[in-house]
Amino acid sequence: MQRYFAKEKNDNLFLLEEKDYHHIKTVMRMKENEEIEVVYQNILYLACIQNVKENMKILELKEIEKEEKESKKINLFIPFLKEQKLDFIFQKSTELGVSKICLIPLERSIIKAKEEKESKKIERWTRILKEASEQSKRLSVPELEVISNINLLKEIEDLNLICSTKNNLKSIKKVMKNNSSFDIINVVIGPEGGLTLKEEEKLESFGFIPVTLGNRIMRAETVPLYLMSIFNYEFME
Amino acid sequence: MQRYFAKEKNDNLFLLEEKDYHHIKTVMRMKENEEIEVVYQNILYLACIQNVKENMKILELKEIEKEEKESKKINLFIPFLKEQKLDFIFQKSTELGVSKICLIPLERSIIKAKEEKESKKIERWTRILKEASEQSKRLSVPELEVISNINLLKEIEDLNLICSTKNNLKSIKKVMKNNSSFDIINVVIGPEGGLTLKEEEKLESFGFIPVTLGNRIMRAETVPLYLMSIFNYEFME
Repeated sequence: MQRYFAKEKNDNLFLLEEKDYHHIKTVMRMKENEEIEVVYQNILYLACIQNVKENMKILELKEIEKEEKESKKINLFIPFLKEQKLDFIFQKSTELGVSKICLIPLERSIIKAKEEKESKKIERWTRILKEASEQSKRLSVPELEVISNINLLKEIEDLNLICSTKNNLKSIKKVMKNNSSFDIINVVIGPEGGLTLKEEEKLESFGFIPVTLGNRIMRAETVPLYLMSIFNYEFME
Repeated sequence: MQRYFAKEKNDNLFLLEEKDYHHIKTVMRMKENEEIEVVYQNILYLACIQNVKENMKILELKEIEKEEKESKKINLFIPFLKEQKLDFIFQKSTELGVSKICLIPLERSIIKAKEEKESKKIERWTRILKEASEQSKRLSVPELEVISNINLLKEIEDLNLICSTKNNLKSIKKVMKNNSSFDIINVVIGPEGGLTLKEEEKLESFGFIPVTLGNRIMRAETVPLYLMSIFNYEFME
């Protein structure tokens, strides 16, 4: 069944984004009284469509499911990358359960954030996160944050990891096994070419642990998927 | 340093694919005596380029590294999917160390193999596998096989898994922990909609173990990456 995230709920009526009404009517060509799934504030509802042709209404039928608090939260800190790569990361990390994606400025990142363009991009990324959440039947959309300076990572008191390219580091597996009690994991991923030594040292001084992901040479956009996959596996029963 | 896989080696001269000569000359614009890495029969060599302009020669300088026998081999059995999805799977699984990709006909696969087109496609896939191996600095290119019938999976005596969508199955993690001694792992991945009951039963009768990958709803093209990531993690020191 098609799933949509609602913007608002007034009594038993859901308010969707304009694009979603268009999707229901023109792309899915749904009929009067057809049922859909609607998520609002982490609760999944069964709903039905009325007045398809004009002034469409989405009517609550019943509550189906409340989101159970996820025991573990994964937050990814990634550099600005080329649009296509970021889109890919946003989509796939959502599928694999990411809680938050933070974009951070890193020295070796080829793409620099430009304020004048940023609000448009955030709109685009927000849409990708929402659509990927609908597709993968999540009950929440990952948070998105754009951080202007890595000094802001100073206050984080969780399990904090850096995907490092330095030699002789502990593997992410070892560090995960030794730190299994943390509920929130923050991982900083570098751009092509990795973090600079200065960036790594700064993050280490903030309590981030540099880890190796093994010997494979992965493209920048593969790393978040790799990480999300292994976290899923690590927390699997 | 740029890496290429050689077709042949005659004494101290490597023979590359036509496309690679073009790449060296026109895309990379390499100069006389510039050094490259060449892989031939799982051995990495340092080589240099001579006669760039006409009748280019690739001259062996020295052997750098022999591939160590990988202790574990992962073979993925995947259905025919849309071109873009297969390209993606071929590229990313290579990055993550897949040994062999077998394309298998499955009932719910929307794309059916067509013999007349197949040889052209195999050429295309072979190129993707080779290029991804060069990019990710592998010393071998994954094997590619197209299987005409899943009955041919009968003879495989390794750890054989099916990514199943059935309920109440053991997780892949549990099955991996209980079968850590196998050196070769074969995994069958279903198309969108999964394997049919009949296909699963047949594979089970061949000794394949159905496993669940967890509760996430992943797109078909995400599953091979997820698998390759968790195998890397599982075998990490």
